[in-house]
Amino acid sequence: MSAVRLENPHCARHQNAFDAARRLVEDELSAVNALIVERMQSQVPLIPELARHLVAAGGKRIRPVLTLLAARLCDYRGTRQIDLAACVEFIHTATLLHDDVVDESDLRRGRSTANALWGNKAPVLVGDFLFSRAFELMVADGSLKVLQILSHASAVIAEGEVAQLVTANDMATDEAAYFAVIKAKTAALFEAASRIGAVVADRPPAEEEALATFGEQLGIAFQLVDDALDYAASQALLGKTVGDDFVDGKTTLPVILAYRDGDDTERRFWRRTMEDQNQTRADLQQAQSYLARHRAIERTLERALEAAGRARGALELFPASPARRALSEIVDFTVARAY
Amino acid sequence: MSAVRLENPHCARHQNAFDAARRLVEDELSAVNALIVERMQSQVPLIPELARHLVAAGGKRIRPVLTLLAARLCDYRGTRQIDLAACVEFIHTATLLHDDVVDESDLRRGRSTANALWGNKAPVLVGDFLFSRAFELMVADGSLKVLQILSHASAVIAEGEVAQLVTANDMATDEAAYFAVIKAKTAALFEAASRIGAVVADRPPAEEEALATFGEQLGIAFQLVDDALDYAASQALLGKTVGDDFVDGKTTLPVILAYRDGDDTERRFWRRTMEDQNQTRADLQQAQSYLARHRAIERTLERALEAAGRARGALELFPASPARRALSEIVDFTVARAY
Repeated sequence: MSAVRLENPHCARHQNAFDAARRLVEDELSAVNALIVERMQSQVPLIPELARHLVAAGGKRIRPVLTLLAARLCDYRGTRQIDLAACVEFIHTATLLHDDVVDESDLRRGRSTANALWGNKAPVLVGDFLFSRAFELMVADGSLKVLQILSHASAVIAEGEVAQLVTANDMATDEAAYFAVIKAKTAALFEAASRIGAVVADRPPAEEEALATFGEQLGIAFQLVDDALDYAASQALLGKTVGDDFVDGKTTLPVILAYRDGDDTERRFWRRTMEDQNQTRADLQQAQSYLARHRAIERTLERALEAAGRARGALELFPASPARRALSEIVDFTVARAY
Repeated sequence: MSAVRLENPHCARHQNAFDAARRLVEDELSAVNALIVERMQSQVPLIPELARHLVAAGGKRIRPVLTLLAARLCDYRGTRQIDLAACVEFIHTATLLHDDVVDESDLRRGRSTANALWGNKAPVLVGDFLFSRAFELMVADGSLKVLQILSHASAVIAEGEVAQLVTANDMATDEAAYFAVIKAKTAALFEAASRIGAVVADRPPAEEEALATFGEQLGIAFQLVDDALDYAASQALLGKTVGDDFVDGKTTLPVILAYRDGDDTERRFWRRTMEDQNQTRADLQQAQSYLARHRAIERTLERALEAAGRARGALELFPASPARRALSEIVDFTVARAY
């Protein structure tokens, strides 16, 4: 998600903040990238061709970087974090590919994603391949505990994606349902990616849990910022179209807050645009105006700041170190994207 | 695939042949079915709702039955085969769900599958959930060897499905390419399902390999029969529409043989209908007539009989037993479907 969005050169300041954090594990990240390219090879050329589109395009690799930095934070000295960071990225990429699958209705709305080029089926099957490859890599690593963490995270992510589908176009979706969705679809993999760092280093449960909390809260902050920016960012700044969630009728927190606090006219507007998917060109601007009236973007970002604070707090269990500082900078970068 | 097709009461004779083989592991299969229903539960109700559509509809469960019978053949006395048979069925069901994903062009051709009810996205995400659940179950079983076998099989299946996509609508597809596709997309899971029986029983490599060969050859026979019946079966007999592969432009063995041995007129026909997907209502009958001229269905079924013979041959390593007889009867049933 953000990986693509952040390619834009206008984001240089935030890019630099993240790059500084990433620099600490630069060599390991190069090894992760090499492994990703190696392991997405197949006798069926369409697989690397399509996977390259996403996985080798040089996204920010925020999730594998979490695994690398968490292992560093835990003083781990081996090389297992390389393989496991690649697994995490493969799982993420498979999710992205499957998230791109569209229905006829989406096609009519003129969406252009991987499937515009390849049809619906190829991205699904290549996603399955990458997902299987992730498990092959984990099995080669040989830790049943890591396998348990990542297979569970994968099931939770799929549940979260289905829950998101169910809550879309339904204005009865409340804050609790929203947070359940983003914890599952986004925070679960951030949490697993971070937790693994403690697991490979064989650290005590308290440290493993602290890193899990760090990842979970960072993931929540990350998604909240994403959902806020979908209504707030200028296209030039982010290299993405504003209003995708609006067009899809996704019941994200800004909309939930504006609907809850809106008057009858506003509620009718949200039901028409979100539930009936009856939208005109001017509706996005109207939506933004209602969101502004209720400070819905700001209040969403406040929640992101709270989650970011909890993520930073979880790091305090660990003594100060370059790795701790880098993880903290990733938190800063995640919320700074919004400002 | 066949699971659905064989529900038809007209198939009573073959149904009985399979039921006899299955009766030997009836209690275990009930435990597998209970576990499947239990493990497809989720806090997101759409998941069991959609999964039930396929996984709990009471298919023939040919793949999990292979695991149960292979374990029995190897004198295994524990209960691990139950969980692993459920894993195998979950992987198969995830594949079916992902195979149902359609493109706009398919929708235009009026296909009706799970996604006609649920859209494209839900089946993909529920497939991911079942796939993740399969891995969670395997991790709980705790055998890295089993995990290695099934994660590798999953990657091979995905590769096979992509390869099938690439060879569709391409009359340059030859026999070797066809067999590579069916080995990967179908035989790999039959092979893994059978191999696992020897693995849980901790049998020597020769027996594990014999069961793997049995499963692989059975899977090849199974797919060859499926591909022959797609042009040959009467709709009443199989409860399915004849000509699905023709409409999809899948380059299955009957078509490959008829194209190779056809004259210029025939080759132009196959290129128009398969490659250009330019088909009229009368073309299926024309296709069947060309296939008949070259005995393409019979020759495809001869290959199935050869593979079935190799599957039976692989069982000879094992002493005669009710389990060996049941596995042999499954081979009979697989090819008998065609006659």
